[in-house]
Amino acid sequence: MSQARNADDAVNLSAKLATFSERWSPRVVAQMNDVQFKLVKMQGDFVWHSHEHTDEVFLVVKGEMEIGLRDRDVVLREGEMFVIPRGVEHITRAREECHALIVEPAGVVNTGDAGGELTARNDVWA
Amino acid sequence: MSQARNADDAVNLSAKLATFSERWSPRVVAQMNDVQFKLVKMQGDFVWHSHEHTDEVFLVVKGEMEIGLRDRDVVLREGEMFVIPRGVEHITRAREECHALIVEPAGVVNTGDAGGELTARNDVWA
Repeated sequence: MSQARNADDAVNLSAKLATFSERWSPRVVAQMNDVQFKLVKMQGDFVWHSHEHTDEVFLVVKGEMEIGLRDRDVVLREGEMFVIPRGVEHITRAREECHALIVEPAGVVNTGDAGGELTARNDVWA
Repeated sequence: MSQARNADDAVNLSAKLATFSERWSPRVVAQMNDVQFKLVKMQGDFVWHSHEHTDEVFLVVKGEMEIGLRDRDVVLREGEMFVIPRGVEHITRAREECHALIVEPAGVVNTGDAGGELTARNDVWA
């Protein structure tokens, strides 16, 4: 199933980003084994949450974001990535719209243990 | 172990690329669960090989590369990615030096089933 959803051609991240405008609504663009690559557009503050069973990667494609941790904030600019360890509470923020590539296992819900209105539908492909 | 090797701060891909010049010698820059993110510099032709147990992702950070498959070639430019399915024979090529982020499980050897002199030492962190 996963392989069938991967494109036969190169996946162009900018072209995929142009296919949607909703914020905080990750779109899957590729899958490697059980790991999905999701593009997300962010602006404003997300919600504090954690993922009990997995690490999570953010790689900024455009703009600038902040990953708030309980003891510090990590600023990520274009071409920078960060691994949020499993179980660690975090919040994502962006003053202006920021585009990032999220890498995490398929099935991970964006709001983790927090739930709420920002919870996006999962496994939506761009 | 894996988390301990991840930086407390953002990983800047350009800065990591500036720390080495060897080609075909991937350097790990981050690990998410059992999945490693490796930067590689390529120029010329690699060797035909496959990875029996895992898919493999290439995301071009700078320049242009080609992933040769037995039935076609896939061209990847900056900001483009491709998933090579497990077991599929492939060769990477770059006319001019190209920099890419490889995403694959820890322990995967760069030359896969082919071996040979281009086989790089594994798990070397930048």
